[in-house]
Amino acid sequence: MPTTSGHTRAIRASKVQGTSVYNNEGSSIGTVEDIVLDKTSNKIMFAVVGFGGFLGMGEKYHPLPWALLNYDKDKGGYVVPMTKDVLQAAPAYDIEDLTAHDGDIRDKSYSYYKVNQDW
Amino acid sequence: MPTTSGHTRAIRASKVQGTSVYNNEGSSIGTVEDIVLDKTSNKIMFAVVGFGGFLGMGEKYHPLPWALLNYDKDKGGYVVPMTKDVLQAAPAYDIEDLTAHDGDIRDKSYSYYKVNQDW
Repeated sequence: MPTTSGHTRAIRASKVQGTSVYNNEGSSIGTVEDIVLDKTSNKIMFAVVGFGGFLGMGEKYHPLPWALLNYDKDKGGYVVPMTKDVLQAAPAYDIEDLTAHDGDIRDKSYSYYKVNQDW
Repeated sequence: MPTTSGHTRAIRASKVQGTSVYNNEGSSIGTVEDIVLDKTSNKIMFAVVGFGGFLGMGEKYHPLPWALLNYDKDKGGYVVPMTKDVLQAAPAYDIEDLTAHDGDIRDKSYSYYKVNQDW
């Protein structure tokens, strides 16, 4: 059966930004705030998930391997196959730190979530 | 000499969106409107450059291989190493078509600009 939606493997970054993110129990954990790109290749370094702060203060941003985010049509958001505890204990940074140091943060994120890094 | 900027290979998509784009003669050709991502891998499909319409009507969007965009600090924008003629004759689409058909448009764009497709 042919797909009629026309929306398949490709998605615009602007559609991803602002989308809700849920843990493996279906609880909301935050929002995709941004996507970090590699300037020197055609690679996505990671998705930036904001877990929320208090009145905009103290918000920390979690770098998550893009491939960990699976879109769930019923939820209208991304589900990450990780428990609340694993996500809360994950590396988190100030927004400006995410793009510093040539993507060192990508390596730490992939390592923490035990995602195979193919580049 | 160590770099002190802290901003190196990594950049946030939100910083790229809205940035001006110039051709190889330094003329402004448009703006990065968006970035199209592959949902199934950690790859950037292409950058979306808007060449401008008239009062917002009839705007067409050009898919450009991300690696073709080279940031020029003096210009405060991206330079694409192509002539005005090549860019104007390039494939252009409506915004919704860009993400249709599993990224077929990526293949057409890479082919037109003769950029080696490594995936």
